[in-house]
Amino acid sequence: MKTTFEAGNTIAMLDHGYCKFIESWGSDQGIIETARTSTDKGFLGWEPGICPICNGVKEVMPPSGDAWVECHSCTGKGTHIGDKRLLKYLWDNLHATPFEFAGMTVEIQAPIFVFREWHRHRTQSYNEMSARYVPLPDLNYIPSIPRLLLNSSTNKQASSLNDIILTPDDAHLYRQALIEHYKSDEEFYQRALKMGVPKELARIHLPVGRYSKMRATGNLRNWLSFLTLRRSPKAQSEIREYAQYGVGYFISELFPRTWSNYVGEAV
Amino acid sequence: MKTTFEAGNTIAMLDHGYCKFIESWGSDQGIIETARTSTDKGFLGWEPGICPICNGVKEVMPPSGDAWVECHSCTGKGTHIGDKRLLKYLWDNLHATPFEFAGMTVEIQAPIFVFREWHRHRTQSYNEMSARYVPLPDLNYIPSIPRLLLNSSTNKQASSLNDIILTPDDAHLYRQALIEHYKSDEEFYQRALKMGVPKELARIHLPVGRYSKMRATGNLRNWLSFLTLRRSPKAQSEIREYAQYGVGYFISELFPRTWSNYVGEAV
Amino acid sequence: MKTTFEAGNTIAMLDHGYCKFIESWGSDQGIIETARTSTDKGFLGWEPGICPICNGVKEVMPPSGDAWVECHSCTGKGTHIGDKRLLKYLWDNLHATPFEFAGMTVEIQAPIFVFREWHRHRTQSYNEMSARYVPLPDLNYIPSIPRLLLNSSTNKQASSLNDIILTPDDAHLYRQALIEHYKSDEEFYQRALKMGVPKELARIHLPVGRYSKMRATGNLRNWLSFLTLRRSPKAQSEIREYAQYGVGYFISELFPRTWSNYVGEAV
Amino acid sequence: MKTTFEAGNTIAMLDHGYCKFIESWGSDQGIIETARTSTDKGFLGWEPGICPICNGVKEVMPPSGDAWVECHSCTGKGTHIGDKRLLKYLWDNLHATPFEFAGMTVEIQAPIFVFREWHRHRTQSYNEMSARYVPLPDLNYIPSIPRLLLNSSTNKQASSLNDIILTPDDAHLYRQALIEHYKSDEEFYQRALKMGVPKELARIHLPVGRYSKMRATGNLRNWLSFLTLRRSPKAQSEIREYAQYGVGYFISELFPRTWSNYVGEAV
Repeated sequence: MKTTFEAGNTIAMLDHGYCKFIESWGSDQGIIETARTSTDKGFLGWEPGICPICNGVKEVMPPSGDAWVECHSCTGKGTHIGDKRLLKYLWDNLHATPFEFAGMTVEIQAPIFVFREWHRHRTQSYNEMSARYVPLPDLNYIPSIPRLLLNSSTNKQASSLNDIILTPDDAHLYRQALIEHYKSDEEFYQRALKMGVPKELARIHLPVGRYSKMRATGNLRNWLSFLTLRRSPKAQSEIREYAQYGVGYFISELFPRTWSNYVGEAV
Repeated sequence: MKTTFEAGNTIAMLDHGYCKFIESWGSDQGIIETARTSTDKGFLGWEPGICPICNGVKEVMPPSGDAWVECHSCTGKGTHIGDKRLLKYLWDNLHATPFEFAGMTVEIQAPIFVFREWHRHRTQSYNEMSARYVPLPDLNYIPSIPRLLLNSSTNKQASSLNDIILTPDDAHLYRQALIEHYKSDEEFYQRALKMGVPKELARIHLPVGRYSKMRATGNLRNWLSFLTLRRSPKAQSEIREYAQYGVGYFISELFPRTWSNYVGEAV
Repeated sequence: MKTTFEAGNTIAMLDHGYCKFIESWGSDQGIIETARTSTDKGFLGWEPGICPICNGVKEVMPPSGDAWVECHSCTGKGTHIGDKRLLKYLWDNLHATPFEFAGMTVEIQAPIFVFREWHRHRTQSYNEMSARYVPLPDLNYIPSIPRLLLNSSTNKQASSLNDIILTPDDAHLYRQALIEHYKSDEEFYQRALKMGVPKELARIHLPVGRYSKMRATGNLRNWLSFLTLRRSPKAQSEIREYAQYGVGYFISELFPRTWSNYVGEAV
Repeated sequence: MKTTFEAGNTIAMLDHGYCKFIESWGSDQGIIETARTSTDKGFLGWEPGICPICNGVKEVMPPSGDAWVECHSCTGKGTHIGDKRLLKYLWDNLHATPFEFAGMTVEIQAPIFVFREWHRHRTQSYNEMSARYVPLPDLNYIPSIPRLLLNSSTNKQASSLNDIILTPDDAHLYRQALIEHYKSDEEFYQRALKMGVPKELARIHLPVGRYSKMRATGNLRNWLSFLTLRRSPKAQSEIREYAQYGVGYFISELFPRTWSNYVGEAV
C-alpha cells in the first residue's frame, strides 16, 4: 500500500519553515514480515481468514499455500488471529526491533532554537546548512500575537519570569521591536561579511530565531520516540508544530496501522 | 539509477546458508543531495559541465537553472568540479553523515557462530528466528576438506592449538565424525521435544554450527564499517563469505560510486 | 554514599556462572547535579530544608550559600522541595539523559544462549572470550529437575512443543542424557584440537549451553532498560537470574534512590 | 595510576568559557584487562618480564602466579611481550571495544555555536542549561583581533565571503560594533522578560555567540573520535580550543598510554 503523497511533498510550518518529505522505506506489512522471522513465517493477512474446510469464522487460511496454519476448529491449533492484532501485540509489548526496519528521510526548515532541541535526538542522522560555508538567508521567526499571549499557567516551561502577565499591547510592542532587532542583525551581518570578517565569525551574533535548513533521517522506532517527546504538551509550541503536523502527518500516512497503535486509536 | 536485482534476489552461502536482498533506500545521488544541504545546493551532475557562454571545458552549468554556478573563466568563480569528485571528497575526509541517508535490509541464513560475530555490530537492527518459539530446522554447517586444511600460519586467529598440522586424512575423519555428531544432536533434540522438555531448554545442547535465520538492517555507513571488519583477512572465513559475496555484492550494485571510493578503485 | 561491596564482588549464577562487579561511576546525587545543569543549580539536599528566617516547615535553605533559594513563606518563591522528589520527577517524566551520567561495568560467566539474548542490547559494550583464541573451558549448563518441570502454561515462550507435559521421570532421564551429551561434545572437541583442526572450526559443534565469559559496560539508563526486558516474566528464566540477582542487585546497592523509583517503591 | 588533577579542576577557554573535569572511570590498565577477556587472561605488566628459569631477556613471568605464561626459550611459547605493545596493537588494529570500558564526564561553558557543533557527536550524553527555565547569563563571545584576522587562505571553512581581506582597522571596528550589539541584545532580552514575554520566546533573538553551559559524558572511544574531528585544522578555531586544551588535556592525563598511541607518539 503506497501513500498518496510523493517525494517533495511539503508542509508549511511557522512563518517561514517547512517539513518536506524526501523518502521512506519499509511498511506496516514489512514490520510484520520482519517480526515473523522469529517464527519462520511471513505476512498472513491483516484480518483473520476463513477456514475453507469447516468455514469457521475465527479460523484462518493464510493467503499463500506453504504458510498454511491449521484451523482451530477442525484440525487443532490455529495461531493466526490477523496480523492487525500481531502488530498491536508487538507495539504493546515493547517488541521494538521490527519497527527499526522502516524509516523516513525529511528536509526541515526551522529556526535554530528548534534545531537545538531537535538535535538532542541522537539516533537520527542530520545534515544541516552551515554558515561556515554559505551566508544564512535572511529569514527569522516572528511569533504571532496569540502565540506570545500563550503564557500558560499550566505549563511551567512556557511561563514568563516571575509569572508576569504579558498584555496584548506589550505583545504588539515586543513584536515590532523584534522585527527591528532582526533587521539590525541582518545589516550588521552583511556589513561584517563585506568587511571580510570570516563567515564562521560573522555568524556569531545571529539570533537563534534565524531559520536554518537540514535533512534528517531515522528509523520508525526513533521517529516515534521523537514524537512522544515532541508532541507532548510540555514540548515548546514551535517544535510541537513540526512534530504534530509535519513528521507525525507523514508517519500517519506512510505507516497507518503502526500509527493507529501508537496514538491508541481503535483500527 | 536502479539496480538490476530485485527484492528476493538470493545468493547461496556456505553449504546451507544464503544472503537475500529485501530492500534498500537512498542512492549515490541522494548522498550528494544530502551533503549539499550544507551549502544549500542540490545534485549538479556527476561530471563537470561545460559553460554555455565561454565553452570552457572545466566550467560548469548545472542541469537546473536555479542552481546555476558561475563559470570560472568568464564570470568569476566556478565551484562545481563534478559530483564524482565531491563524493570522493566526502569519503576521504570522514564526512560520514551523508552516508547514513542510505541503507539496506537483508535476510541471512547462517550458522549461529556466524551470527554471534555479526551481532557485535551494534548499529544494525536484527530480528532472528528463535528456538524458544519454533524448533530450529535440521541444517548444520559442515566445513569442506579444503576449508579444514586452510590452517594458515599467517593468520593467528585461524590457527590450530599448538600449531599442529591437520592431515588430509584426519580432515576427512573429522568431517565424518562431525556429520555423525550433528545427527546425534538432532535425534536428542527431537527426543527432548517429544518428551515435553520446554523448547527454550531443549535447544541448549544444539551446536553453534547449526543454522539460524535473521533479518538485518542498517544504514550505508554502518554496512561499510561492517564490511571493513568482516572482509578483512583477519575475519573468520565463514563470515567473510557473507561480507564479501553477499552484503558487499549488494552494496556494490546499489551504490556503485560509493563502493568504488570505498574499495579505492578509480571510477 | 559508597556501597559496601567492592570491585571483585561476585555472585554465583546457575550451576557454573557468575556476575562480578568491576566498577561503577556516577551516583544518585550526581544524577541530580547533572539534571540541575538545566537550571544552573547543584544538589540541594534530598529532603526539603527549613527556612532559617520564618522557620516554615515547607520552606528551604539549600546547604550552600550561593545556591540560596528564596523561602516561599517570607520572601516569595521557594522551589526546592527536596531532591528526592526531583529524582522521582525526572524518572516519571522520561527525563532520561541524567541517568546516562552514571554507569557500571561487570564481568559475566554464562551459557552461550544467555549471551545470545544479552547481546541484543546494543547500547552496552562487550568483550567476550573467544574460542578462536583459546579453547573454551569444559563448563556446561545442566538445568535442575525443578527448572525442567517449570513448563508454564502461562508463559508461551517457555512452553513445550504441542503442550506435551514433561514427567519427573523423563526430566531425570533427559538430564542424564544431557550430561552424557556434553561429555561426548568435550571429547570430540579435544580430539579435534589434537588432530590440528583450526580452533575456529573445532568449536562449531560446541553447544549453546556451554559457558563463556565476557565483560559488559553500559550507562545506568541502558542497564535499567536491560532490566525492564530481562526481569520480565516473559524473559527466559536463566537470563532473568542474571538480571534480577546479579545486575539488579548491583544497581540497587549502587544507586538506591534511582532503584526505588525504578521498582516503584516508596522511598 | 591516578592523575594529579581532581574533580572540579577547571581550565579557562576563550573569553568566558571553561572546561571542568567532573569524573572519569576505567584506566589504561583496565582496557588491557577487558581486552584480555578474549583470551581469559588479565593484566600482565606494561613491560615484558624476565624468565626466572632461563633469565632470558625477552621472556616473561607475569606478576601473578596463576596467569603464568611459559617462557619462549626454555619451555616453549611465550606470548607476553609487554602490555604496552598489546595496547598499541589494539589501537592500531581497530579493536575499539575495550576503549569503551573507560570514559569521562566534563562540564563545559561555551558559546551556543560551539555547542551546535559539539552536539553533532551523537554518542555522547548531554544536559544543557535551558533558557526555557532560567534566563541565560549575560556572557558573550567576543573574538580577539588576532582571531578575527586569522582569515586563512588555506582553510576554506574559515574564509571570508568572496575572499575579501579583513584589515586590522576593520577588525577593530567590527569588535566594537559586536560589543554594542551584544549590549543591545541583553537590554532587549531583559525588557522582554520584564514585559512578561514567556522565557522560551524571549530567548529567540539571543545570538549564537552567547554562552551556555552543559555537562557531557562519553566513553573513551567516543571522546577520541570527537577529538579526531575537532582537533583537526579543519575544525573551527573555537571548538578546537576546547578539544585540544580541555578534553584532550584531561584524556592525556587520565589515560596517558592510550593517548600516546592516539597521537602517535613513541611511549
